[in-house]
Amino acid sequence: MSMEIPYKIYLEEKEMPAQWYNVRADMANKPAPLLNPGTMQPITLDELKPVFCEELARQELDDTTPYIDIPEEIRSFYKMYRPSPLTRAYCLEKALDTPAHIYYKFEGNNTSGSHKLNSAIAQAYYAKQEGLKGVTTETGAGQWGTALSMACSYFDLDCQVYMVKVSYEQKPFRREVMRTYGAKVTPSPSMDTNVGRKINQEFPGTTGSLGCAISEAVEAATSQDGYRYVLGSVLSQVLLHQSIIGLETKTALDKYGIKADLIIGCAGGGSNLGGLISPFAGEMLRGEADYQIIAVEPASCPSLTRGSYRYDFCDTGKVCPLAKMYTLGSGFIPSANHAGGLRYHGMSSVVSQLYEDGYLEARSVGQTEVFRAAQQFARVEGILPAPESSHAILVAIDEALKCKETGEEKNIVFVLTGTGYFDMVAYQKFNDGDMSDYIPTDAEIKASLAKLPTV
Amino acid sequence: MSMEIPYKIYLEEKEMPAQWYNVRADMANKPAPLLNPGTMQPITLDELKPVFCEELARQELDDTTPYIDIPEEIRSFYKMYRPSPLTRAYCLEKALDTPAHIYYKFEGNNTSGSHKLNSAIAQAYYAKQEGLKGVTTETGAGQWGTALSMACSYFDLDCQVYMVKVSYEQKPFRREVMRTYGAKVTPSPSMDTNVGRKINQEFPGTTGSLGCAISEAVEAATSQDGYRYVLGSVLSQVLLHQSIIGLETKTALDKYGIKADLIIGCAGGGSNLGGLISPFAGEMLRGEADYQIIAVEPASCPSLTRGSYRYDFCDTGKVCPLAKMYTLGSGFIPSANHAGGLRYHGMSSVVSQLYEDGYLEARSVGQTEVFRAAQQFARVEGILPAPESSHAILVAIDEALKCKETGEEKNIVFVLTGTGYFDMVAYQKFNDGDMSDYIPTDAEIKASLAKLPTV
Repeated sequence: MSMEIPYKIYLEEKEMPAQWYNVRADMANKPAPLLNPGTMQPITLDELKPVFCEELARQELDDTTPYIDIPEEIRSFYKMYRPSPLTRAYCLEKALDTPAHIYYKFEGNNTSGSHKLNSAIAQAYYAKQEGLKGVTTETGAGQWGTALSMACSYFDLDCQVYMVKVSYEQKPFRREVMRTYGAKVTPSPSMDTNVGRKINQEFPGTTGSLGCAISEAVEAATSQDGYRYVLGSVLSQVLLHQSIIGLETKTALDKYGIKADLIIGCAGGGSNLGGLISPFAGEMLRGEADYQIIAVEPASCPSLTRGSYRYDFCDTGKVCPLAKMYTLGSGFIPSANHAGGLRYHGMSSVVSQLYEDGYLEARSVGQTEVFRAAQQFARVEGILPAPESSHAILVAIDEALKCKETGEEKNIVFVLTGTGYFDMVAYQKFNDGDMSDYIPTDAEIKASLAKLPTV
Repeated sequence: MSMEIPYKIYLEEKEMPAQWYNVRADMANKPAPLLNPGTMQPITLDELKPVFCEELARQELDDTTPYIDIPEEIRSFYKMYRPSPLTRAYCLEKALDTPAHIYYKFEGNNTSGSHKLNSAIAQAYYAKQEGLKGVTTETGAGQWGTALSMACSYFDLDCQVYMVKVSYEQKPFRREVMRTYGAKVTPSPSMDTNVGRKINQEFPGTTGSLGCAISEAVEAATSQDGYRYVLGSVLSQVLLHQSIIGLETKTALDKYGIKADLIIGCAGGGSNLGGLISPFAGEMLRGEADYQIIAVEPASCPSLTRGSYRYDFCDTGKVCPLAKMYTLGSGFIPSANHAGGLRYHGMSSVVSQLYEDGYLEARSVGQTEVFRAAQQFARVEGILPAPESSHAILVAIDEALKCKETGEEKNIVFVLTGTGYFDMVAYQKFNDGDMSDYIPTDAEIKASLAKLPTV
């Protein structure tokens, strides 16, 4: 094929996926089942129903159905901001003087500023279908909370967001976006929940963590009538919804006859990475194709590269089910000086199992070099990226520079998960030369893991 | 035609305009010439050259060439973020229960967050071509400064931005975006220029205005070797570059056989409105078609609806040429409580002349109702709009509701010039119910106009 490749490949509406792809269906080694924290036995649909909407609980447990229809109302909402462009980074290639072809799927062209909206709208839809009054959730950097408040506003659902305190303070404007969409935003740990009060007492002055915000949101959901808890990453249902990223990417590449050689995603809980790689990993699992896949995580929260593959709680408060995953321990709280998002202690059990089975590799990178890559990208590609996304940018640049040495014309594909417009406090630190890097010691990680239950 | 209209109409790269359209060429009554403030005579190319790049000065004075080629390097840059989508607001239509069809051209999908980048990249390109070291400019809400810093970074030009003090303080993150792109940002009025020191002395504690920031930027440009001044609105060259908005809009409408009935744009200096309406006004001027065009301005800075059509200085410091335009007087400074942008005292001479000749009408709207429309739009269309853009949204909603009463299926088209991600201080005021409206008195406007020179 020698079709000229435009700067941005937009699919037509009719080319948008009508079904999500559930990669678990093609996995020979399925992710280990979630465990009920009370019984330490695999959790059942009935046990999940008090926490999650029924249909979402069903999706969470379904590891056999490969394709699941996207309901019409969700598809309509998707059309407001999707298909997202697959962009050929011509300007970056030129700046790097690399023979590699760099493509990025840009998920930041919506007000939540990230891919999180893909799952938020699905979760809000099922909550509405079930006749609920509202949902509760946690948010770290604020992208998920914003996405959920947008989705809830669309379906006229109440939305209660527990926001990790360090982000609440560093990102007051995120809070206002959520409020504009009608959400109630509470800094976590708060004094509104039992678990919040307990954490505040144990760790006075803590700036919070995703794990403890999750615990608070779960408690808020289960203590109010007509509420359920929803989560923006980690869960298999979220990866299912995020598969739209990978499906659109693959359709766009196929349309122009491009075969990806290297696929890169940043990894916190695993939602964008899992969504991007699903259809590609599916081909690998079915023996149809081969790809090099790289998960990029921050050196300050390195669950894949330095964590342990075992059962752990999904939340600090230990009220959620346990998942088998690469984890630093549910008590692990990354340093507050880490501005780059991706602060979760564990990793999606789907991504963890694929990693365990050798379908992907992982790299950890430092904060300062991530912001350097972010600035370089912003200046040549015209998009100021989210710090999270910039982890993937950094490795894409590194790999493109390797191609320059070897002369290889690799096709490098990554997700630009979002924009950094609400991360300017972190950019300011970088601009002022005040950014520092933090890497946990082996002893810290070991101590954190030592507190986990033996399952 | 009964082709199904997608949510978003994306043109293909090859459908993007290769030329800008200069509406002045088709105007029977040309905009009055700029006057040299020293001689009060029409300014010449040679007199403009110390302030503007030569090619831009030429474009400024050219009122006869209808089409001007867009240089290849600018077209390449455009491809990074254009064509911008023309979006059918299906969700808004449904929420309003209107038979009207609402379309908006969304110019906010780039890091500057607005249409300003369309002219910034052109101006930076010509500065680079001329071998300049850098450019100076002013910025109000910060959109133009951001756009220019992106453009300068792309062409490796130095960029010095004088930012209206009230915005500098309300929008610290805008400053950081500009710094990330390598710009130097100074709050205006500053103590770095003669005109800044003079204004600070005359009006101690002033929060600044676009007019005085312009004066500072012009002084900075003319007092440094290898620098020129560039401006993001008002000038005819800017409207020329912004014609890409209207040209793309028209191509997209034509592609689907849609005839616009009503065209709406917000109006500060007139750049987005002028750019949008240029090709449509061209058809009207040539007698080929008829459209209803509405310019929407803030009640707190109502140059078209309450100003006077006469020669005025473009800047408070009276160092720039004079333009014949609808103006409130170059000494007019809108109340600091006005958060909605569009703070310029005058109006593009092209837009002013078209208005004078009856090709468009104007409306002024209050700040609180503008934010109410912004919130309504954000909740159903998924984009949190810039306050500026929301002036157009408000009138589009009003007109769609009129259609509901009359049953008319009008095609309403407006520009969503940008996103409000850096306007959250204003949104917070609105969310907290602390927003107030300010309308200047007749006496205030009269007093401001009384200070103008008689030409």
